[in-house]
Amino acid sequence: MRVAVIHGPNLNLLGEREAHIYGNQSLADINAKIVHEGVELGLEVHCAQFNSEGEIIDALHGARADADAVVLNPGAYAHYSYAIADAISAIGIPVIEVHLSNTHAREAFRRTNVVAPVCTGSISGFGFQSYLLAMRAVATLKF
Amino acid sequence: MRVAVIHGPNLNLLGEREAHIYGNQSLADINAKIVHEGVELGLEVHCAQFNSEGEIIDALHGARADADAVVLNPGAYAHYSYAIADAISAIGIPVIEVHLSNTHAREAFRRTNVVAPVCTGSISGFGFQSYLLAMRAVATLKF
Amino acid sequence: MRVAVIHGPNLNLLGEREAHIYGNQSLADINAKIVHEGVELGLEVHCAQFNSEGEIIDALHGARADADAVVLNPGAYAHYSYAIADAISAIGIPVIEVHLSNTHAREAFRRTNVVAPVCTGSISGFGFQSYLLAMRAVATLKF
Amino acid sequence: MRVAVIHGPNLNLLGEREAHIYGNQSLADINAKIVHEGVELGLEVHCAQFNSEGEIIDALHGARADADAVVLNPGAYAHYSYAIADAISAIGIPVIEVHLSNTHAREAFRRTNVVAPVCTGSISGFGFQSYLLAMRAVATLKF
Amino acid sequence: MRVAVIHGPNLNLLGEREAHIYGNQSLADINAKIVHEGVELGLEVHCAQFNSEGEIIDALHGARADADAVVLNPGAYAHYSYAIADAISAIGIPVIEVHLSNTHAREAFRRTNVVAPVCTGSISGFGFQSYLLAMRAVATLKF
Amino acid sequence: MRVAVIHGPNLNLLGEREAHIYGNQSLADINAKIVHEGVELGLEVHCAQFNSEGEIIDALHGARADADAVVLNPGAYAHYSYAIADAISAIGIPVIEVHLSNTHAREAFRRTNVVAPVCTGSISGFGFQSYLLAMRAVATLKF
Amino acid sequence: MRVAVIHGPNLNLLGEREAHIYGNQSLADINAKIVHEGVELGLEVHCAQFNSEGEIIDALHGARADADAVVLNPGAYAHYSYAIADAISAIGIPVIEVHLSNTHAREAFRRTNVVAPVCTGSISGFGFQSYLLAMRAVATLKF
Amino acid sequence: MRVAVIHGPNLNLLGEREAHIYGNQSLADINAKIVHEGVELGLEVHCAQFNSEGEIIDALHGARADADAVVLNPGAYAHYSYAIADAISAIGIPVIEVHLSNTHAREAFRRTNVVAPVCTGSISGFGFQSYLLAMRAVATLKF
Amino acid sequence: MRVAVIHGPNLNLLGEREAHIYGNQSLADINAKIVHEGVELGLEVHCAQFNSEGEIIDALHGARADADAVVLNPGAYAHYSYAIADAISAIGIPVIEVHLSNTHAREAFRRTNVVAPVCTGSISGFGFQSYLLAMRAVATLKF
Amino acid sequence: MRVAVIHGPNLNLLGEREAHIYGNQSLADINAKIVHEGVELGLEVHCAQFNSEGEIIDALHGARADADAVVLNPGAYAHYSYAIADAISAIGIPVIEVHLSNTHAREAFRRTNVVAPVCTGSISGFGFQSYLLAMRAVATLKF
Amino acid sequence: MRVAVIHGPNLNLLGEREAHIYGNQSLADINAKIVHEGVELGLEVHCAQFNSEGEIIDALHGARADADAVVLNPGAYAHYSYAIADAISAIGIPVIEVHLSNTHAREAFRRTNVVAPVCTGSISGFGFQSYLLAMRAVATLKF
Amino acid sequence: MRVAVIHGPNLNLLGEREAHIYGNQSLADINAKIVHEGVELGLEVHCAQFNSEGEIIDALHGARADADAVVLNPGAYAHYSYAIADAISAIGIPVIEVHLSNTHAREAFRRTNVVAPVCTGSISGFGFQSYLLAMRAVATLKF
Repeated sequence: MRVAVIHGPNLNLLGEREAHIYGNQSLADINAKIVHEGVELGLEVHCAQFNSEGEIIDALHGARADADAVVLNPGAYAHYSYAIADAISAIGIPVIEVHLSNTHAREAFRRTNVVAPVCTGSISGFGFQSYLLAMRAVATLKF
Repeated sequence: MRVAVIHGPNLNLLGEREAHIYGNQSLADINAKIVHEGVELGLEVHCAQFNSEGEIIDALHGARADADAVVLNPGAYAHYSYAIADAISAIGIPVIEVHLSNTHAREAFRRTNVVAPVCTGSISGFGFQSYLLAMRAVATLKF
Repeated sequence: MRVAVIHGPNLNLLGEREAHIYGNQSLADINAKIVHEGVELGLEVHCAQFNSEGEIIDALHGARADADAVVLNPGAYAHYSYAIADAISAIGIPVIEVHLSNTHAREAFRRTNVVAPVCTGSISGFGFQSYLLAMRAVATLKF
Repeated sequence: MRVAVIHGPNLNLLGEREAHIYGNQSLADINAKIVHEGVELGLEVHCAQFNSEGEIIDALHGARADADAVVLNPGAYAHYSYAIADAISAIGIPVIEVHLSNTHAREAFRRTNVVAPVCTGSISGFGFQSYLLAMRAVATLKF
Repeated sequence: MRVAVIHGPNLNLLGEREAHIYGNQSLADINAKIVHEGVELGLEVHCAQFNSEGEIIDALHGARADADAVVLNPGAYAHYSYAIADAISAIGIPVIEVHLSNTHAREAFRRTNVVAPVCTGSISGFGFQSYLLAMRAVATLKF
Repeated sequence: MRVAVIHGPNLNLLGEREAHIYGNQSLADINAKIVHEGVELGLEVHCAQFNSEGEIIDALHGARADADAVVLNPGAYAHYSYAIADAISAIGIPVIEVHLSNTHAREAFRRTNVVAPVCTGSISGFGFQSYLLAMRAVATLKF
Repeated sequence: MRVAVIHGPNLNLLGEREAHIYGNQSLADINAKIVHEGVELGLEVHCAQFNSEGEIIDALHGARADADAVVLNPGAYAHYSYAIADAISAIGIPVIEVHLSNTHAREAFRRTNVVAPVCTGSISGFGFQSYLLAMRAVATLKF
Repeated sequence: MRVAVIHGPNLNLLGEREAHIYGNQSLADINAKIVHEGVELGLEVHCAQFNSEGEIIDALHGARADADAVVLNPGAYAHYSYAIADAISAIGIPVIEVHLSNTHAREAFRRTNVVAPVCTGSISGFGFQSYLLAMRAVATLKF
Repeated sequence: MRVAVIHGPNLNLLGEREAHIYGNQSLADINAKIVHEGVELGLEVHCAQFNSEGEIIDALHGARADADAVVLNPGAYAHYSYAIADAISAIGIPVIEVHLSNTHAREAFRRTNVVAPVCTGSISGFGFQSYLLAMRAVATLKF
Repeated sequence: MRVAVIHGPNLNLLGEREAHIYGNQSLADINAKIVHEGVELGLEVHCAQFNSEGEIIDALHGARADADAVVLNPGAYAHYSYAIADAISAIGIPVIEVHLSNTHAREAFRRTNVVAPVCTGSISGFGFQSYLLAMRAVATLKF
Repeated sequence: MRVAVIHGPNLNLLGEREAHIYGNQSLADINAKIVHEGVELGLEVHCAQFNSEGEIIDALHGARADADAVVLNPGAYAHYSYAIADAISAIGIPVIEVHLSNTHAREAFRRTNVVAPVCTGSISGFGFQSYLLAMRAVATLKF
Repeated sequence: MRVAVIHGPNLNLLGEREAHIYGNQSLADINAKIVHEGVELGLEVHCAQFNSEGEIIDALHGARADADAVVLNPGAYAHYSYAIADAISAIGIPVIEVHLSNTHAREAFRRTNVVAPVCTGSISGFGFQSYLLAMRAVATLKF
């Protein structure tokens, strides 16, 4: 089973920015852990990061051909990108939403989530472990 | 008279996605119909599709030189892209908004439309015919 | 195919009132154009205008027997008449909403539309051409 | 004791429209049941149906002379007709609100009710039985 | 100068209903006072009362031919009838809004007024004197 | 047929509290009337009162085994207890909502009702007669 | 009978500012007209203008001893000064609210009025005539 | 490490109710899986279910002595129980929120979550796997 | 005079939890101070703490027989428990609301208070002194 | 210890106005009681009353030099004066908010309180006793 | 060119209050810098500070005669003083709004700004430099 | 010191579009002025313009290495791009927000600003001078 892991905006700065919120691991570190977890779970993983909403939509579209499921950290786009939500609805494969931080415990705007309603499920608040738990969640999905 | 037809995000998946909402014709099928309608109406047509908000803005800017009017399906960007709205205001040529589905009959968020106020007019709910009606609308505009 | 064209409140004053918004053609002028378009499209047309909400409901009910589709300009009732919306739901034939002006570009209250969600589709902003486009839209509907 | 039963907009289509919501009995069928219930309860009943808000107001005014209580199904006017609400306040006899369907279980707009606050009580969700229960409620009122 | 005085819904019950709010004079009494005031001010007055929104729109339309100004008590329609507001905008003669009671001091819904923005001015809270003051206001208007 | 009548918070004080709102009969008096009505209608009745939200949920769960329908006066829980609403959805038997007073005619918070949408129907404003009408409503339900 | 006429903030600039909204008469001109109207009506008038909310409250308090009624143009304080509203409630004599312009036809914030609910009545939109009508309104009040 | 698993209201009906939303496993089945997962992860698990808000608060308080972390499915209390949220804040040990269904994809009221802001993290939408993922999340927490 | 002091949810953890908000005295310490103050003021005091909304309602009901006044710290129930508010209205003896912290200075949800409107008065922000001040307030009440 | 007692707008009318809300004691009476309570508690008291927001700000500023704490009845300014709130934040000494009436039990606008969040604590609903309780509260503050 | 610099409420405490927000320079220090900047730019400067809304309105009115432009720090009045906004509209000379802190980064209420819409431009967040930048902005205005 | 000047969407059309709002200078003209001002102030400037939200995020990220401060005109993205706001938070260097027009004086949607709260300060309404003032603001920042 193939999993596309899509990291949204600003996640390329992980480890360099606001470590009290997002932890001090770099995106490369986290990708390595995700790939490792994939190997454990028998999942083939492809990771990519995009700052552009349009590129995230492209990547979601691409996953229709290249993946059986998506693990998506939409970052701040979670709070307003109806275009990404439409892309998720359109591709017809499971998408699991991931956030490093507990978005409910932060600014009020992070409580509006327009992407979650069209995802299969959501995991947030566990730092990089959120991704690893999402990998496990993928492994339990029935296809 | 030249018409730029700009298709917004996720419309590249037409015919492959949610056919009960968007119909089962591909974007290529629809573009062929639009071009054919253009020929009937004496309109020169150029069609393009973009998932990226920035590219839609670029395309609208480009239409200032290349077109006399625009037929725009903003997709989900209709509901939040003030940047696209500003682009429409800026280019000073008529822009006609088109939607395949009746956006008022769907999720609540689709009832907020930030692009419509700066368009000349709006046509929605007739599937691909929405585009053909928009072509006719263009043909009746006075320049 | 028979089409009932129903004009809502204040449209009897067309051509005499606020020409910068609604154009300078009278309702009789527009009805003549609609009928002419009907002939072109092989549609039998009946036009009527009502200021009363109750009479519009009556006319919609009447269309169940007399028409295959309705072209409705609900005027300001679009923004609050749930009773007209219920009538549209009840009659089970396609109703196409038409507005002369782009209602999204005017006062804020015109952005609430309680009738649109139960119509087949919506056309606004093209002056009297909105009606002619709606006639075409009717001609493309499948029965 | 005399009861005026006033049916609001679109109820003339009962039995012909949306049977999954409103049941498959015609208004004549229901009126027959109401009259029969009236006979059982010793109530003199007069039934009428109106699509027009103004006519409903007239009928409520008329009930001051002709009836001791009113059973009113305001239909969609329940959600916005402050004029009907004022009429109920003005006539000074008990008015019982009835709905065939459970309005709370339907579209969000049906949760706003501007007529209920000035009625004696409200019964909804029991199909035509809502009317018969309202007749019983009238029979228990003290004058 | 000719003045059309239009009384809205439920005002036919004046003097018989809720005297603590609306006073104990009948509509006929008030009309007599208005006509008398008109004679004093050199104004030709025509009074009418309607419960139906559509009839009020018709009366406003009629005033274009028959009157130089309108004194309108929209009653509860003040709070939601955009169709009456559109009629006022359309007729292009001064319309003065009148209310017997101080609508701001009553239920919250009476604080939304959709008719006032298109009137020339507004007078409320003085019982039948509100009408007489409106007659004076008409007399001071410049034509 | 068996009916579980569940009285919510503060109803144990009936007859002793705010008689102008809730009437001057005690809960025991009302239960006697309900049982008597049950006998008339051939319904086996069990009545209970709870101040605790959790106990009301327990009672609703219990009704799955013990009853064919529920008559529920949720009291103030009607306005916020999504947990009770979920219990009603879960048990899969008809639940009829009852209120002694007309909740729409009281404080604004009583206009939000989170329980009504998952009930079969609702009866309010008739004092203890609300319960008796609900018993009749139960008797008309088809199983 | 004595009338205190209290002009609120910025009204000292009348005639010098925004004449398209407020007219081109100075406050002195208007006061002269008010006094003249007072003489006609047998009312003793005292006029004053204040930019300070506190001074308006003081003036209202002073009117308890010095006046039988108040004509108040609260200017922009109408939209937020609950302290002035409390002062009006406290003094127990009639206060009539006046505005030169039709506040409903201007910015959205002018549609919130916290002072009107505690006034006897309100007159707006007639330029300086609003004051003269208010004087007449005072003359009709019963003491 | 000891984990208290607390199931909220209506979860005792799992497997018997609305299987299309919550799955067809009973609570006992799920508890068995949780305990088994605990054994795998070296976690000592105690499971309990409560319909009462007060008992959930008690159980959270009890966890201060008996557990190192809590896995909590607050059910519908997630949407309004500030008292449970305060209990979570008070006990000072990690609490992980779990939902069987994707609450964002259901009724609008389930989008308000007052408990999530004080939890460590949140997992929803994976049926009973949500619990097992939460157990893993606990195992990764640093103490 | 007898006073029932009712402590709401989570207050059993006082002194052990969030001392920066609630202070470092235990509930037993505070109860001792309250009783002592009662002795000083000649008030007979009974203190109890409940996490359950239903038990708080029971305790309020019990106070009708056992007490002349209630001092209530509703904790988080202050922000949503209309059932407790109804209980306060029902019992007809003075209830004084107390909070340890200044609820207005904390999270936004603590600014909605549904219990305060039916209490005699409210004291908050003085730590345990809030209770002692409430005891004094009771002592000044007239019976 | 020195206490500045600052009375806000309209409180100079105490005893003369709306006695059913504010009691029948004059401000002088209440000040005498406050001073007497100060003597009992060993507090040096200075009382002043202002209708002007600016003067209240001045008085708060003055209290930095002249007082160790402030007892403030902001009257209606509590509901909108962010300038007074800023003054309280700025002066860095404890400010205790007092209201004679229970503001939560009155008009809806009195439920918004912009001053309370920057005060130490709040006491309302006990008539003039609110002030005396506030004096006691001051006496318990630690400096 | 003459510039009136008007400092609003609480700014007299600059340097003594909340230095982490407003900096540690006194108002006198800042005025000296402003005057010095004025000399550099060839602007004649007059500075004044007022806590009273009415005095700020007076000062704005005065600037019509005494100044060619105004630099205004409205302090907290920015968030609710429509009376100051009206004064700015009335005086017809450029007014530049200045804030020491970035008001968008603070409490939610500081995001509503009723004064900014009628100013020429706005500068905030640069401490005392905000004033000096505003002086430069004045120097670039065309008269 | 190095400054990155980032122009947002549609600003490439400056001078060609809506000159009454944005002025008649081209972006190249303005960049020349900015660079010139930089030379004056000893600042090394790099200017770039992007229509794409993703490219603006990239440019902000790039500024971490290439610049000491950013001057950003986010254009319409100011009103909804939480992703750009997150980028500003992440990069940890001062960002100054600039707008050519006074956004508060235009459409209502321009009053919501999601970018301002994470910027150092904001300057708007001075046309191209807004940029030059921002350059000065940068020059005064302490590093």
